[in-house]
Amino acid sequence: MKQVLILGAGLSSSSLVRYLLQHSEQENWHITVVDQTMELIESKTNKHANSTALVVDALKRDIRLPLIEKSDLVISMLPARFHIEVAQDCIATQTDLITPSYVSSEMKALDAAAKEAGIIIMNEIGVDPGIDHMSAMKIIHEIGEKGGELISFKSFCGGLIAPESDNNPLGYKFTWNPRNVVLAGQGGASCFIQQGEYKYIPYHRLFSRLENIEVNGYGSFEGYTNRDSLKYRGIYGLENIPTIYRGTLRRPGFCDFWNIMIQLGLTDDSYTIENSHLMTPRRFLNSFLPFNPNLSVEEKVCLFLQKSESAIYNKIKWLGFFNMDEPLGIPDATPAQLLQKILVGKLSLDPEDKDMLVMSHEFIYNYKGQKHQVFSQMVNIGEDSVYTSMSNTVGLPVAICAKMILKDQIEARGIQLPLTKEMYLPILEELESHGIQFNEKDTIID
Amino acid sequence: MKQVLILGAGLSSSSLVRYLLQHSEQENWHITVVDQTMELIESKTNKHANSTALVVDALKRDIRLPLIEKSDLVISMLPARFHIEVAQDCIATQTDLITPSYVSSEMKALDAAAKEAGIIIMNEIGVDPGIDHMSAMKIIHEIGEKGGELISFKSFCGGLIAPESDNNPLGYKFTWNPRNVVLAGQGGASCFIQQGEYKYIPYHRLFSRLENIEVNGYGSFEGYTNRDSLKYRGIYGLENIPTIYRGTLRRPGFCDFWNIMIQLGLTDDSYTIENSHLMTPRRFLNSFLPFNPNLSVEEKVCLFLQKSESAIYNKIKWLGFFNMDEPLGIPDATPAQLLQKILVGKLSLDPEDKDMLVMSHEFIYNYKGQKHQVFSQMVNIGEDSVYTSMSNTVGLPVAICAKMILKDQIEARGIQLPLTKEMYLPILEELESHGIQFNEKDTIID
Repeated sequence: MKQVLILGAGLSSSSLVRYLLQHSEQENWHITVVDQTMELIESKTNKHANSTALVVDALKRDIRLPLIEKSDLVISMLPARFHIEVAQDCIATQTDLITPSYVSSEMKALDAAAKEAGIIIMNEIGVDPGIDHMSAMKIIHEIGEKGGELISFKSFCGGLIAPESDNNPLGYKFTWNPRNVVLAGQGGASCFIQQGEYKYIPYHRLFSRLENIEVNGYGSFEGYTNRDSLKYRGIYGLENIPTIYRGTLRRPGFCDFWNIMIQLGLTDDSYTIENSHLMTPRRFLNSFLPFNPNLSVEEKVCLFLQKSESAIYNKIKWLGFFNMDEPLGIPDATPAQLLQKILVGKLSLDPEDKDMLVMSHEFIYNYKGQKHQVFSQMVNIGEDSVYTSMSNTVGLPVAICAKMILKDQIEARGIQLPLTKEMYLPILEELESHGIQFNEKDTIID
Repeated sequence: MKQVLILGAGLSSSSLVRYLLQHSEQENWHITVVDQTMELIESKTNKHANSTALVVDALKRDIRLPLIEKSDLVISMLPARFHIEVAQDCIATQTDLITPSYVSSEMKALDAAAKEAGIIIMNEIGVDPGIDHMSAMKIIHEIGEKGGELISFKSFCGGLIAPESDNNPLGYKFTWNPRNVVLAGQGGASCFIQQGEYKYIPYHRLFSRLENIEVNGYGSFEGYTNRDSLKYRGIYGLENIPTIYRGTLRRPGFCDFWNIMIQLGLTDDSYTIENSHLMTPRRFLNSFLPFNPNLSVEEKVCLFLQKSESAIYNKIKWLGFFNMDEPLGIPDATPAQLLQKILVGKLSLDPEDKDMLVMSHEFIYNYKGQKHQVFSQMVNIGEDSVYTSMSNTVGLPVAICAKMILKDQIEARGIQLPLTKEMYLPILEELESHGIQFNEKDTIID
């Protein structure tokens, strides 16, 4: 019986654990799930006969190492910063490892050691990063193999609320960690290249440089670029491509609103507000508006918005920013923490809500004297509030990769990403049977 | 003969060294100046009989400690981060110390040890911080002593180019470290309190929230608030004042222009630009403008500026941003470094240029049922490119304080700021004889 060790039973482990247990009988697997509370683990395993629930602290090496030693495969669903220690243990015990997270430079440095240990450490195999890599590489390879010249690649992805649960003026609810949403785009300018021109966008302009993206059957979205898109030239083998950028999708109107949050300074997480526990939403908002003793907070907001941007004003009002009844109650809070508190009160998922994952790639390539445009788009709706689209799109590729490793179907060793046909073809194919599928359309445009 | 040790012979040491040597005969002082090159030291001492020029590395403790041991007073004009080590040596050898820099928390922590050693460590006694503290405390004490209630204190200071040398469209030249000017306002929101309302301004809005300030005989200036003004409530003993803020002065039009530099993202120092050595000013500017293959860089700038802000456009053009002749030539440069290179080419001082220091305090207080407004303003023009206003306003208060310490006229011990009458009255009085003087005007306004 093959032993699989899953570290972490958070939201994105639901679909992963379900898949592995569904296949455990036939494949002769035993799944051990480690987390800090029994309830959390059992909500994922449902006390399945081929599962063990283990309440221990996986961050402690003396506890973790013997567990890894007994396993054939480890899947780390811990926060990304803990993967490196797990990887070191996997090398020491010659145990294969999967993580859905971005490869850090420390992780990359373990490549030779992992190869020497004869193990594979597969990374970036969830969604953004993960499914985006695989679906993009498939088309990049197809274009290359038929002799096309790829001249542009734009890729956008968003974790959103499903249309049937979209019932607020922002067209947005928190389908994952609210703090990450509030801080999105911070920590570095967006950089990319467009028709050979380098482009850099500072954080405070990110949400005002938007691209419109239509997704067949789902209407309009807005994309803002983020982070370092230049590095994907190397990752995807597109060193000389004149246009490449990646970004995040939101429903129209959200970015204009979020831009105002940034312009005001409400997303700042670098300092604390004096007497923040006494701040009402109204006072919090007012502390970022220019002083004017003759205007109400409402009037100051209108002045700040300048043009009669009633759509943004109405969002601010709907979120309760003008309320003066109750202090936000967080001592020594940063602006971002106070903003998060206001938003979580209005933008959290209801129990019956469903989430939605949207991905849209656009490729342009020259082929036999003609210019082609390819759209490859995927929309996936969650099943419910446990088997969310986020959980499915992160957990299923991890799970399928786990199956392939356990069945010795992957030859690669060392630090890997799912960029080869060996990886992405079987995974994309099986994802289709789970309803995660890309619509591809190739049009001659010139 | 009393021994004075000056660490650092940079620009702001000129007036300090001159003052001490001018008084050295009469007071029986010997001045040792330490720096890395003989030329730099001798440009300050002019081989005066009561001076010693010492070319050694003052950052090395084994070199520094014996020098401090032989001295009666140390003046550290080193970059602020080195003061703390010097202070520790001064405590060990029971030697008094003066620095013009802000007190760090590490420095503050040495208070008890300095008192036990029986020494004074005087800080923040140059200009901003220094003369601003002393001139403000004088009026704060005067208002308090006559029974007035201070309700507002706004203070602005700027290092600028003298009117007679002001011959460019920006009304600005670099009179001190250009890097500090390019990065000004970064590293934290501006925070203050205005009529009891907390106000926070993020960096990217700092240069669009301006206050107009008139200085008698010198026309109009613009002030932008900066850093943490809230902490001055404690420093000045004004815990419950409803309005207090501090800021920086520029000539009108500069801040609008600088705001555009920030909006574009050109002042960012947190990442490096790919192939930065090949960037011409034009390409550098273009990389921060939205992509548009049908517009020239000039046209894209106009679009970015939206309203016909020809004043800003003309500044951008005058600075050479549209030049495509020559790459900027700095490898792995940040945007801020490339911007600095462009600006330094146009905004550096000519040899005959003079600089100017401007300070403006505004106090409002209630007294016997009436509301008073006090303006206390100082304008100082530099003598030449060595004895600049910056050098005089930093060096002279340090020098006068040195004289007072050497003549045993200061009783205070430990970590000190020049906030008491004992300190500021004699210093402000002697500064007047050097032409550094405040015009004060008290008007009943309500």
